[in-house]
This record gives sequence, C-alpha cells and structure tokens, in this order.
Amino acid sequence: MQWYKIFIPELRELIETRSLKELGEFLRRFHPADIVDILREFPATDRVLAFRLLDKEKIAGVFSLLELEEQEELLKQFTEQRVKEILLEMGPDDRAQFLEELPADMVKRLLALLPAQEKEVTNLILNYPPGSAGRLITTEYVALSPEMTAQEAIDQVRRTGLDKETVYVCYVVDKTHKLVGVCSLRDIILAPPSKKIGEIMNPMVYHVKTTDDQELAAQVIQKYDILAVPVVDQEGRLVGIVTVDDVLDVVQAEVSEDMQKMAAVARPEEGYFALSFSQSVPKRVTWLVILLVIQTFTGNIIHLFEDTLNSMMILTYFIPLVISVGGNISAQSSTVVIRGLATGDLRSPFWWNILKRELFMGALMGIILGLIAIARVMLWADNIKIGLAVAASVIAIAFVGNLWGAFAPLLFRRLRIDPAVASAPLMATVMDLTGLSIYFGVVVSVLHFTRVM
Amino acid sequence: MQWYKIFIPELRELIETRSLKELGEFLRRFHPADIVDILREFPATDRVLAFRLLDKEKIAGVFSLLELEEQEELLKQFTEQRVKEILLEMGPDDRAQFLEELPADMVKRLLALLPAQEKEVTNLILNYPPGSAGRLITTEYVALSPEMTAQEAIDQVRRTGLDKETVYVCYVVDKTHKLVGVCSLRDIILAPPSKKIGEIMNPMVYHVKTTDDQELAAQVIQKYDILAVPVVDQEGRLVGIVTVDDVLDVVQAEVSEDMQKMAAVARPEEGYFALSFSQSVPKRVTWLVILLVIQTFTGNIIHLFEDTLNSMMILTYFIPLVISVGGNISAQSSTVVIRGLATGDLRSPFWWNILKRELFMGALMGIILGLIAIARVMLWADNIKIGLAVAASVIAIAFVGNLWGAFAPLLFRRLRIDPAVASAPLMATVMDLTGLSIYFGVVVSVLHFTRVM
Repeated sequence: MQWYKIFIPELRELIETRSLKELGEFLRRFHPADIVDILREFPATDRVLAFRLLDKEKIAGVFSLLELEEQEELLKQFTEQRVKEILLEMGPDDRAQFLEELPADMVKRLLALLPAQEKEVTNLILNYPPGSAGRLITTEYVALSPEMTAQEAIDQVRRTGLDKETVYVCYVVDKTHKLVGVCSLRDIILAPPSKKIGEIMNPMVYHVKTTDDQELAAQVIQKYDILAVPVVDQEGRLVGIVTVDDVLDVVQAEVSEDMQKMAAVARPEEGYFALSFSQSVPKRVTWLVILLVIQTFTGNIIHLFEDTLNSMMILTYFIPLVISVGGNISAQSSTVVIRGLATGDLRSPFWWNILKRELFMGALMGIILGLIAIARVMLWADNIKIGLAVAASVIAIAFVGNLWGAFAPLLFRRLRIDPAVASAPLMATVMDLTGLSIYFGVVVSVLHFTRVM
Repeated sequence: MQWYKIFIPELRELIETRSLKELGEFLRRFHPADIVDILREFPATDRVLAFRLLDKEKIAGVFSLLELEEQEELLKQFTEQRVKEILLEMGPDDRAQFLEELPADMVKRLLALLPAQEKEVTNLILNYPPGSAGRLITTEYVALSPEMTAQEAIDQVRRTGLDKETVYVCYVVDKTHKLVGVCSLRDIILAPPSKKIGEIMNPMVYHVKTTDDQELAAQVIQKYDILAVPVVDQEGRLVGIVTVDDVLDVVQAEVSEDMQKMAAVARPEEGYFALSFSQSVPKRVTWLVILLVIQTFTGNIIHLFEDTLNSMMILTYFIPLVISVGGNISAQSSTVVIRGLATGDLRSPFWWNILKRELFMGALMGIILGLIAIARVMLWADNIKIGLAVAASVIAIAFVGNLWGAFAPLLFRRLRIDPAVASAPLMATVMDLTGLSIYFGVVVSVLHFTRVM
C-alpha cells in the first residue's frame, strides 16, 4: 500500500537541493492519496513548500484527504485567490464535508469566495442533517431528458461529462427534474442513434431520499452492485448522486463508530489520532463513570449476604468466576445481534427466531460451562454442595446473560436508540449485578435444600 | 430497501391462480437481489416453481445470492443440463465461491459439466488460498495490447466487453501477458483514432498479487477511489481483476469477523442464520470454556488473602467494583487499537505514540474514576482507609488496564496473531486476575501503612 516509499530518498534529495521544478513534476505523477502520505513524511516547513508546487486539481484532491487541523494550518499560508481555487476544484460533497467542521464565521467567509451557483449547492448540502444521504451527494452526474435521441444523449455526455467517472450511468429526468429513469452509457451507445432515451431507459430506478440515512445508501449500492445511487428530494426531484467510493468510506466510518460504541466509547469518531487528547478523554471516560457508579451496587448485594459469606468464606472465592460468565456470554450474543442489525441480516420479523435461538444456545452453553465449573470446584474444594451451587449459578447466569445480550440491542432498536450502545462493558456491568443476585440466590437455596435433606 | 413489498399481494395472486406466464414476466422485471427476497417470502414448493420461471441469466444471478443450503436444495430439483447452464452463466468468482463450500465429490461432478476453459479458470481460482485476492478475481475484463491503435481498441471493446460493467477501465498487457498499463475507455474515445494505446495508457497501475490478502485489495480500491484493481501472479502476469462490489462485500465480511472475534467468538462467519445451531455452539463456547478455566484462578488469589478478608469483611464488597474497571477500560483501548490497525490508520511506526497516549489517558481516567470511587465509598462506609485503598486500586487498575488493552493487539500483531483476538472478554479475564492482585496488594499496603502511622 505504500509503493511511494521507494522514492523517498530521491524525494528527500530533491527537497534538500531545492530542485523545485523537478520536485513539482515528480509529485504530480502520484495519486493524491499517495501525495498525502508523502507529505506527512516531510518536516512541516518542507510540507508547505511541496504543497505549493502542486497544480490546482491535485491540490484540491490532496486537500480533501487531509485532517482538519492540517487543512486549517495550510489555509493560513495561502492567499485568498488560492483558497478560492482550491474550494472550486473540490467536489461539492468534499467541500461541504470540509466546511462543516469549521467555525461558523470561517465558513461564512469561505462561502463568500464562491460564485453564486457553487455557494448554493454547498449551502444545500450543509442543510441536510449530518449522517444523511444528502450530505454525501455530488452534483457531477449526467442528466438526460426522455425526449432526447441516443445520438443527442451521446453528444450531451461528450460535452458535459466525459471527465467524470460517474458518466457511465446517466439519469433521466422530466421537465420538473423528477427522476424517471436510468440508462447506462453502454445501452445508449448500442442503441440506434435515432431511438428516444425514453424507450432505452429503465424506469425502475433504485434511489434514496436526501433525508435517508447514509447507511441505507450504502446498503442499496451493495445490494444491487451499482456504482452510484441517485438521491431525490421529498418531491422526487433528482438533487444528486452518491457514489460507491463515498459509500466505502461511510461503511468503514460507521463500523468504526459501532465498534467504539460497543466498547462503551461515547460519541466516537474515526481516526485514532484525529482527536486531540483533551477531546478523547471525555468521550472515553463518560461511560466508565456511569458504569462505575452502577457497579457500586454490587457492594450492596454482597452486603446483603454478608452472613452467608461469613459462615462460608469459600463462597467468596467464586464471586469473580460466576459473574464473569455473564459478562463474557452477553458480550458474544449482543455483538452477534448488533452486527446482524447493522448489516441488515437481522430484521424485525426475525425477533422471535433470534430470541428462541439464543435461549437454547444459552441453555446449552450454560450446561457445558456448568459441568466444567463443577469439575474445577470439586478438584479444588472437594465440597459437593459448593460444587452444585457454583454449577447451577453458572448455568443460570449463562442462560440469562445470553438472552439479555441478544434482547438488549433489539430493545434499544425498538426504542430508537442505536443498538451498538448495548456495549460489552454495559452488558458486563448489568450481568455483574444480575450474576451476583443469582449466585447468592442459588447458594442460599442449595445450602438450605441440602440442610433439609 | 424492500420496495418489492408492495407487489407481494399481486405476486401471491399470480401464484395462487397459477398464472405462470405472467408470474415469469413479473419476476423478470426485478433485480436478482430482490428476487431472492421475494422467493423467501413464499412457501418452499412455490419457491421452486417461481425459480423455474426465470430465464437462465437471472437464475445464475439469483442462485449466486442464495445461502449454501438453499443452493443444494435447488440443485437436486434440476436436470444436469439446467445445472450446467446455471454454472456457465455465473461469474468465475461466484462459481468458485459456490463450489468451495460443496463436498469434494460433488465439486468434481459439477466441474465435469463445464467446458475445458471454464473448468480451468474455476480450478485456478479454487487453488488460491482462502481469503486471498486470487479467490475474488473475475476474468471478465478487457485486455489491450500497447501496439493497438485507439480505433482498434474501441473495436475490441465493442466486440468483447460492452456487456461488462468493468469495461470502463481497460488493462494493457504485453505479449507475455504482463500487466504494463491501464487506460480508461474515456481516454481511448477522446484520443485520435490512430494513436497507439502504449502512448495513451498510464504505466503506473495499482495492482495486488493473487496471494495478497483480500483486505489489501479492498484498501487499494478504497484509497485510490477506483472501480477495480488488477490482480497479477508472481511473474507480474495479469490473471484477473477484483471489482469494487466484491470489495464492499469483503469489507463487511471482514468487519463481521473482527467484531465477533472481539467478542471472543472463535473462527466466526458472516450471517446470523448462515450457521446451524450445532455449528454455532462450538464457535461460541470454545473461548468461554478457556476463559472460565483462566477465571478459576481468581479464586486462588482470593484464597491467598483470606485472612485479610476475614478480618475486614467490607473489603469483599468492592471486589466486583475494582475488577470491573480493568475490564471496561481495557475493552475501550483494545477496541480502539484493533480498529485502527484494521483500517490501516495505525501502523507500526506509531507504536510508541499509541502507548504514550494510552499511558497518559489511562492515568488521567484512573484519577477521575478513583475520585468518584473514594466519594462513593466514603458516602457508604465512612472509612477513610478503605476509601483510600479502593481509590488507589481503581487508579492503578485503570492505568494498567488501559495500557494492556492497547498493548495486547499490537503484541498479537507482532506475533502474527490477528489483533482482534484481544477480545473484550479476554482482556476482562486477564484484568480480573491482575485487578484482584492489585486490589489485595494495595489493601494490604494501605492497612499496613495506616497501622504504622
């Protein structure tokens, strides 16, 4: 992935000898994504120097890929004219993504640099809710009318769109700009030149609304193996398209977000080093504090059974063991269900199937773990009462933990809370409380029962 | 995502009235991915009926998207001729993916149905290691020679490739089939008809090897925003391409695998209902058993400090609390690092930066949690000694847990073990043992120290 690495010595030499012309030519041969990696290998002063040598299209590409802090740093070094050029070269979606992170007054100042039409598009995108498909749209697509002939369409494509990757799929809109069909460049080329687009196009167009979740756009593109999905407003008018490359980024970002939530990180963001230290701490410590406070109630439960523990100290030995079973098993079932919901693999009608499956699975895994637990206790303590109590607790805790881990994400989803909030640490904390209660309940019952016998 | 739903009543009627011709026409209007969903809404007998009505291209598309069990069920219903047609219509990558799941004798029987060339391609793909880029290749790409003119290239594309989505990017190979360049259909169309492909093409081609990990192919496509990446053998000869739609599937599958490993599921697979109950249980119970056995040593630690506990029963109250801090905080740091490694965001040169950051973050979060813990203990027990002991333990455990959570995935990576194995449950179990030792160590020290005073 870092093929440019072999050129680093050559690049360093060009910089050290200040061979600016050669350096510029050299850099221009690389893809913007590589240039970003290359720039980061250099000290900060040389970075600005190298950046200035790029032509404006490359600059826009490279600029879009930088972290916010790097972008702000660079903007300070540029003249207003240069900033305007970069902003104009950026795609509308990249531009909106960059602007949304900046302070409001700076956004206003930068937007003022743009011509009216570009400003309007950018404002439009910035007005869609964060995380919506509208935020990802690019307006660089080819729109055809159903009355055009194939030949006219080809001319139109040649005139407006041949520098766009997305030209291979064309969208057909009526006079009010309502999306009415889709056709591939291939179909247009193969059709007789005088045939009308209206007859060539496919009127069944997969599309999403501007307000739909970005994840839906990703799912549509993935399900139908298409290169882009058109985005329409509430009246069905085409406002832009979301392309597969943006969707790949969304999928990765959503996954990172889910994973961090599942590890009890509050409001996570992608990129390990993207956040400063002081921004990261509150995101991570929030849930830890909540969980710590909930955890203190485990002390109250133990306090309730203090007499039992006092009379049989050995029962204390197994506290961490039995409660950990609940944490581990609920982490598994909650993760499996959260992921199934995220990929669309699990849907609401399956609820009962999921819970039934987890119910039996929890019971079976509980019995396996219970048998191991009793063997281990007998080996160690040679006390059948304690062995039975521990084994019975492990079985009950595994059963409850597995079911609760599967149920919690489904419940959260129903309550319109992100299922990923049912994190392993949250589940473990809840299961610590539940597990302790089960353990003491079982222990007291077993001791009572064996005494009666 | 389920737009076909509104047609379900109409479809049911067509099936009930056995209007086979209309049903066939109706179904053919849908995308294979939708047809799969539609078929699953029907009872099993109607499913086979509806399936038979599809034309052979649609059948191949639908067939590729079914689960293995459904595929095997259908194959039994078809004549050899029909099976052959379906196999021939499937893309080489889909075909290989289907065959690799079947028992060896069935694969042999099915391969025998194919013509020599198709058999060879399929065998080739099946010989690449599972999870490698070679397993994903399709051979449906357009190859040009550098000596061709632009006009000859266009004719070649028209002749061989216009029904392929992947035609928009053409690969240039020399006489030994070595990959020497890439050019877009756009560049060819815009060039003067007599210009040689060798002059039009870009000789810098991003590519991967057949033996490279599928994740690398995904990263290349994502980094460079390209629609497909060419795959070459050890001698640099082009053997096929991997397209962005397959990569999207890979990304989702890899993520599901990572997430499940991070929840201590052994050798996970995608798709909640893809595995039967008896296949799922061993995958989930393996780690649970291992962790349970490790956990039993917490009992030994408590046993060691039995005298201390006996003399101050209140110390027992805080056992679940202090050890849970280690589990929670290590789940966070391990998740953040595992994900960073998977996306390529974190690389080896960053090791020291990561550990330094987590070291400070652990210390800071430990102090916050320690202050809350001491407040809670004082409120409850009003014993400054115990309060200090609990707070000091929480701080030390948070510090160690956070650092260990970040270090373990890096260590696993270095040992060539998948970092995702550093699951939250594994971290929690290790931290339970570490946490208990720290707690008792701190308690004994604090009690000793305050007694001396």
